Amino acid sequence: MHTVLHPVSSRSGGAAAPISRVAVAGATGYTGQELLRLLARHPSVVLTAAMSSGTTASARRLPALARLWDGAITPLADDTLAREADIVFLALPESAAAELAPTLVDAGVRVVDLSGAFRIRDNGARARWYPETGRMPDGVAYGLTEHERSAVAGARLVANPGCYPTATLLALSPLVAAGLLAAGGDIVVDAKSGVSGAGKMPSERTHFSECHGSLSAYGVFNHRHGAEIEQGVAAASPSPHALTFVPHLVPLDRGILATIYVRLAAGTTEETLGEVFERAYAEAPFVRLVGASLPEIKHVAHTNFCDIGWRVDPSGRAVLVSVIDNLLKGASGQAVQNMNVMLGVDERTGLL
Amino acid sequence: MHTVLHPVSSRSGGAAAPISRVAVAGATGYTGQELLRLLARHPSVVLTAAMSSGTTASARRLPALARLWDGAITPLADDTLAREADIVFLALPESAAAELAPTLVDAGVRVVDLSGAFRIRDNGARARWYPETGRMPDGVAYGLTEHERSAVAGARLVANPGCYPTATLLALSPLVAAGLLAAGGDIVVDAKSGVSGAGKMPSERTHFSECHGSLSAYGVFNHRHGAEIEQGVAAASPSPHALTFVPHLVPLDRGILATIYVRLAAGTTEETLGEVFERAYAEAPFVRLVGASLPEIKHVAHTNFCDIGWRVDPSGRAVLVSVIDNLLKGASGQAVQNMNVMLGVDERTGLL
Amino acid sequence: MHTVLHPVSSRSGGAAAPISRVAVAGATGYTGQELLRLLARHPSVVLTAAMSSGTTASARRLPALARLWDGAITPLADDTLAREADIVFLALPESAAAELAPTLVDAGVRVVDLSGAFRIRDNGARARWYPETGRMPDGVAYGLTEHERSAVAGARLVANPGCYPTATLLALSPLVAAGLLAAGGDIVVDAKSGVSGAGKMPSERTHFSECHGSLSAYGVFNHRHGAEIEQGVAAASPSPHALTFVPHLVPLDRGILATIYVRLAAGTTEETLGEVFERAYAEAPFVRLVGASLPEIKHVAHTNFCDIGWRVDPSGRAVLVSVIDNLLKGASGQAVQNMNVMLGVDERTGLL
Amino acid sequence: MHTVLHPVSSRSGGAAAPISRVAVAGATGYTGQELLRLLARHPSVVLTAAMSSGTTASARRLPALARLWDGAITPLADDTLAREADIVFLALPESAAAELAPTLVDAGVRVVDLSGAFRIRDNGARARWYPETGRMPDGVAYGLTEHERSAVAGARLVANPGCYPTATLLALSPLVAAGLLAAGGDIVVDAKSGVSGAGKMPSERTHFSECHGSLSAYGVFNHRHGAEIEQGVAAASPSPHALTFVPHLVPLDRGILATIYVRLAAGTTEETLGEVFERAYAEAPFVRLVGASLPEIKHVAHTNFCDIGWRVDPSGRAVLVSVIDNLLKGASGQAVQNMNVMLGVDERTGLL
Repeated sequence: MHTVLHPVSSRSGGAAAPISRVAVAGATGYTGQELLRLLARHPSVVLTAAMSSGTTASARRLPALARLWDGAITPLADDTLAREADIVFLALPESAAAELAPTLVDAGVRVVDLSGAFRIRDNGARARWYPETGRMPDGVAYGLTEHERSAVAGARLVANPGCYPTATLLALSPLVAAGLLAAGGDIVVDAKSGVSGAGKMPSERTHFSECHGSLSAYGVFNHRHGAEIEQGVAAASPSPHALTFVPHLVPLDRGILATIYVRLAAGTTEETLGEVFERAYAEAPFVRLVGASLPEIKHVAHTNFCDIGWRVDPSGRAVLVSVIDNLLKGASGQAVQNMNVMLGVDERTGLL
Repeated sequence: MHTVLHPVSSRSGGAAAPISRVAVAGATGYTGQELLRLLARHPSVVLTAAMSSGTTASARRLPALARLWDGAITPLADDTLAREADIVFLALPESAAAELAPTLVDAGVRVVDLSGAFRIRDNGARARWYPETGRMPDGVAYGLTEHERSAVAGARLVANPGCYPTATLLALSPLVAAGLLAAGGDIVVDAKSGVSGAGKMPSERTHFSECHGSLSAYGVFNHRHGAEIEQGVAAASPSPHALTFVPHLVPLDRGILATIYVRLAAGTTEETLGEVFERAYAEAPFVRLVGASLPEIKHVAHTNFCDIGWRVDPSGRAVLVSVIDNLLKGASGQAVQNMNVMLGVDERTGLL
Repeated sequence: MHTVLHPVSSRSGGAAAPISRVAVAGATGYTGQELLRLLARHPSVVLTAAMSSGTTASARRLPALARLWDGAITPLADDTLAREADIVFLALPESAAAELAPTLVDAGVRVVDLSGAFRIRDNGARARWYPETGRMPDGVAYGLTEHERSAVAGARLVANPGCYPTATLLALSPLVAAGLLAAGGDIVVDAKSGVSGAGKMPSERTHFSECHGSLSAYGVFNHRHGAEIEQGVAAASPSPHALTFVPHLVPLDRGILATIYVRLAAGTTEETLGEVFERAYAEAPFVRLVGASLPEIKHVAHTNFCDIGWRVDPSGRAVLVSVIDNLLKGASGQAVQNMNVMLGVDERTGLL
Repeated sequence: MHTVLHPVSSRSGGAAAPISRVAVAGATGYTGQELLRLLARHPSVVLTAAMSSGTTASARRLPALARLWDGAITPLADDTLAREADIVFLALPESAAAELAPTLVDAGVRVVDLSGAFRIRDNGARARWYPETGRMPDGVAYGLTEHERSAVAGARLVANPGCYPTATLLALSPLVAAGLLAAGGDIVVDAKSGVSGAGKMPSERTHFSECHGSLSAYGVFNHRHGAEIEQGVAAASPSPHALTFVPHLVPLDRGILATIYVRLAAGTTEETLGEVFERAYAEAPFVRLVGASLPEIKHVAHTNFCDIGWRVDPSGRAVLVSVIDNLLKGASGQAVQNMNVMLGVDERTGLL
């Protein structure tokens, strides 16, 4: 009875850009569902396929999306994807993404991969942290949009960043690139994530009664996102820094807060940091700089924003705090932001 | 640096309708902030004023809204409202709304009032439950959009319904109106609300440590929304029903779930209810009927939907379950939905 | 290094009662762990075995219990149980309990069964709701301690009540037994439970991200505890009442709040209810009557108390609110309370 | 009707120690209520007074404590305290504690002060962080029980430590004292606390809707507990370390998790740390060492335990994780533990 399911205003955009065909592989997980929600209302694309390798019928009921997207979830079919989409989003496990992405790219489809399969460029490091992945295809861009806009624009395959690296590198990289860190100083990244970051698969660790009223650290010295953050820091500056990354699981659903501890080069002040950040993000619609009034997860939940705050003490220690919604700026939102860059439309399209 | 703050697509809508000027009085509370967020991205209106009677500077910082709406919160000023807006949203305490609304209406401004000041039509009942309000102006419509669309369309003043009555009456009224309830049978409404329904003012009752891990009933036999629900039931049918309404505070932020217990007229089945609901909501884009697969708050949080499910047993007892986001369909979302109806634009505009 | 693990004062109790040997079968679930915690510090018993049918090593690490109980979890072994314990607590699935309990009873061991296997006395009803159970052994008492103290005292097998029936019947039965309900009036029990009531096994329904910020009804007209509540009401009075029971899952870990709606016989007042409750629970150390100041889950969490409040309106409708900790008064706490009655020691021993 | 309100076993302890008279000033806050709960069931003391300066009647209703402690809350009266108690617990604001404590000590009463008034020994530092306090009385012990047992045993006034310092110093001090930290290395303490740590007074910051689903850092470079932690580190070793302490508010009620980042002296391994901790806490019943299997708040909530875990990487970086219940080991539990040491009874009495 409701034939027009798109937002009333969304398709009225005059001559505008041609409509691209997009598809989602892995549509029933948390990031997959967010992709469906965002793409169904996006004025520049039409969603031609939503696929899932899951076999249970219940996995394919998406009651939260009714009236927002009323299409059918179909079984994963590579050839259909290649035929019916110009851009494919992969929200699949690493091994499936590693296998499927090159095939799609070879078929001329552009891919935004939300898995970790293509995030680590160094072959040795990639083999260590993602042994399930194989060769690195050509034309891969690392999709931290604000820092890689031109690479993303021309990419055939975008490796959408991890949630922790997104929150961390948006705060840390500008300072590293500007040479503001004391030489050889340690970097500590203490990150806290909501439970949706662990995915939709039930487990003892994500059982409500285990998380509610609790808090725990995990993956100490041994988390894939630590390697991805180190890669990002190294890309910003050749001078070496030891980086310690410890993620924590906190009893909330959506959101990451990363607290970053660094030593600054002599003479660097709170104002210096402000200037560097302002310059770095002058053209970044989704980065909001809040300075000494530190950011909170509540302010970015259900948005694609990254809010960054900072404090510096007279002895040269700095604390950076960065917050995102892990399912949006940390996953599906940034994936759509990357798609916007790939399509040449305004970066904010469909995301405000 | 970001001059275009509206969604990229939102203002491109061809010749379309003229843009209306809207204002919000009471902009810093939870419902006020939701109004700002919705109106700032709404393609049919321009937000000309956002006012607050609060005096502290901190009450006027709205960091969550940066980049979505970057206007200034100004002190409440009646004459400015009347001069600069075609439609004014009142998100104020009852006493302030009762005083301000008639003045605005007299000045030719249309008003959507989110307080309870004008919800109860009967003078005696209104005096009992809302002693702080005075005379009822002419041209008031009760803004339960799905049931009052034509009255809202022409109204000068819309009394936006309470959150509990919205969830309850959307499920209950169609059955009452269709004569499906057993004559004289009791109605029990056991409603559960997230804490944002209690507003932004700190109190012992809304202290995190008092709510977290807890649950409580309140307002038994003595809640204004009970009177509003009774009025709605009586409007749907003259045959009397005793209605018991008990609200509960549950440890979540946004959302209401109402469980409604009724006795059905002989021969009424689950299918009968389905048919009545389908007919009642054939043209209602924000009511989703889920039948025997009962609805959950998670599916409607951060949306303007009301999801309704039901079960009937062979002996004629029925359980209805209705869920909404109390800040959207239960307040600011429905207010904008009413505005859409008043403006004659698609009811979904700016709400999907 | 800490040889004395029991509370310093707990074993110093003079000549006192002889120490009984107790064992727990199903020691690693939530109720099993609570039993270990309670029994390890109980001055009248010694915990001789804690068994689990689970096979994974991780299932047998109970870090929360270190220093409180440092024994080993061993594989389930029926003959050891019969040999090494005077009283055995079964915290097992119904089918396992149904098989094991009669064997233990035949071997002369007294059993407190926390499953539902022996709660329903009527053979037909039991076959319907618990098809996995078989014959009912002799000497079974229904372990709602406050109402069945003398039956429990002499029982060979105590069927520990379900969590919802405990909260509901403690509030409802005294009124029914006193003839305070209007003849033929409907009873509605709207119950809300924390997630630990669903047990420790991970599932989509108990996944943190599915429960947090959400709320849902389940088991409408089709929950085993509904039958158990009906049995309790029927036991209190032969006059029939239709009872509708709807449980809900709420985003907290521990606790149940049951809101009960009844019609009272003419002339019954709030004070009448108070008198009946005072009389019923004059000797009940774990029932706290709070009257018109309704109870909250926070007040009973981590305790064995049941707090009961009530409101009556002039037209004869009453709302009862009853709260318990589902793992204590709703399971392991009441099991130990029953053990105390079986042993003839003060009912509060080890529970305050 | 229930004349014996104490645990059945608790007072039966033979000839044992004489019973001391204790009182609580500031009995209605979260820590005050925990003190009442613990002291009411403690076998070595009798609770002779519970006072509050709060004036509202509602502040003096403690429904959670009914049947556990049924005494009356009386207005704060210094002379009564001095007359009726051998030991007084102060759960008051710093200014009140600073005024009252010396008076009581002069009157021969022993005091356990839960405020921060007497925690900082250096006069200059104390004047900076606690300007509301005055002179430091004689005979003050810092009450981190495990490290100060003999000082506490003889103290006239025990300054009960802050919650963050308790969690941090129990993990950090043994390593510092053993000389395991690299000379001059930075120490980072990233601490996360439940909301009850902010006290019972309602505020915007502790409003449920502001905390639920959110996370924030606060007090960066400017928190009193940072100074207290620095004092503790300095006491353990004269070699200087820059320490950065950042507390965070997390959406749970009870519990602190501190993640501590240090650089170790060359050659220090995970095993070295284990040996140092084992030695430090061989006689500490409330410190549980969990090593590389990191601790979680859930395991210590509602207990007086501190669980400590640690990981070391080959390059000499170490991560320590320490968890406590902020209201027990971080406040009232440790206060009772200190009282046990002062009375010469087993440290665990009344706390297991």
